Amino acid sequence: MRLPKAVRNLSESFEKLPGIGPKTAQRLTFYLLHVPQEQLEDFASSLENLKKSTVLCSICKNVGESDPCLVCSDSTRDKSKVMVVEQPLDLLALERSGKYRGVYHVLHGVINPLENIGPDEIFIKQLVDRVSDRDISEIILATNPTMEGEATAMYIKRQIGELKIKNSKLKITRLGVGVPTGADLEYADDVTLKYAIEGRREF
Amino acid sequence: MRLPKAVRNLSESFEKLPGIGPKTAQRLTFYLLHVPQEQLEDFASSLENLKKSTVLCSICKNVGESDPCLVCSDSTRDKSKVMVVEQPLDLLALERSGKYRGVYHVLHGVINPLENIGPDEIFIKQLVDRVSDRDISEIILATNPTMEGEATAMYIKRQIGELKIKNSKLKITRLGVGVPTGADLEYADDVTLKYAIEGRREF
Repeated sequence: MRLPKAVRNLSESFEKLPGIGPKTAQRLTFYLLHVPQEQLEDFASSLENLKKSTVLCSICKNVGESDPCLVCSDSTRDKSKVMVVEQPLDLLALERSGKYRGVYHVLHGVINPLENIGPDEIFIKQLVDRVSDRDISEIILATNPTMEGEATAMYIKRQIGELKIKNSKLKITRLGVGVPTGADLEYADDVTLKYAIEGRREF
Repeated sequence: MRLPKAVRNLSESFEKLPGIGPKTAQRLTFYLLHVPQEQLEDFASSLENLKKSTVLCSICKNVGESDPCLVCSDSTRDKSKVMVVEQPLDLLALERSGKYRGVYHVLHGVINPLENIGPDEIFIKQLVDRVSDRDISEIILATNPTMEGEATAMYIKRQIGELKIKNSKLKITRLGVGVPTGADLEYADDVTLKYAIEGRREF
């Protein structure tokens, strides 16, 4: 017996999401058959408007409603420190820790040759331009402590290395003590993140 | 720091789905920020059309594209046997086992006082009407072997009991041997379901 086309279409859309397999996709779809049509329409319009109502900050590439974003336009933040993170969710986790008062740079990914993601697919060039243009004293590399995250940090260090010669006060540090290797930054607890920010080391 | 409204809206829509918590909802939302707008629009239109393009079969209440559904309109199926299941996904699992050639009745739920679901919220009355109207020789109660499923089976048995006096050849059976208690029918493997159909017992 075949499922109705509308059910199959929605199942397939769910299956494209990370961590959702065919069984879960079917369950979610059949669950939605029992919710009011307005809820489906709300869901649909949130999907359609997701990218339309958000912008990438032209300075730090974070996702926000305005450009520049809330962090970059905040005059109380220390603009001479730039924390480099992989994803907007990593930035959120760091903000929750409340420890950091500098600004960010969101790469939107890591260098991952297995998935065909090279340095040009993520916002590394924009970071290098930003560092060479402005008066920045510290770059904190806060990519995840995974193989790809470490490789990306190494790559960025090398790219910025040349600028360092010209700007001798520029320091490159790596988010350090406390974050266990192989884990995902987004899930780290706030205390671990505080220690990690305090214990950052020369890279 | 607050998330953009569009991101929060979509996260909230995801959180309403069963088995998806706030963290997963955020992950799915941020994942979708990186997919093309067309994919978001496809997803949105599948959601909007889910209920518009499907109908409940007026006979068995299964979800389908036509009324009556493919099973009820199939002249090779034995209309004198009715298998009562909780959900359309249970029907699908039973169809995959390939053992059963009768028809179905989908309740769309179980009696569950803790969630305020009484006998009138699911399609029990329609089942009773169907049994009293037509020439049916067997009702196979295939609700899940959980507390709620058993209670629903008991309730249906009592409702149909009176009809049984008038129609002495009506047999009420319960899907039996092979399905482990406490499990969910939808996840049972095909062989277990075959045994369960063969080993049904008087209820």
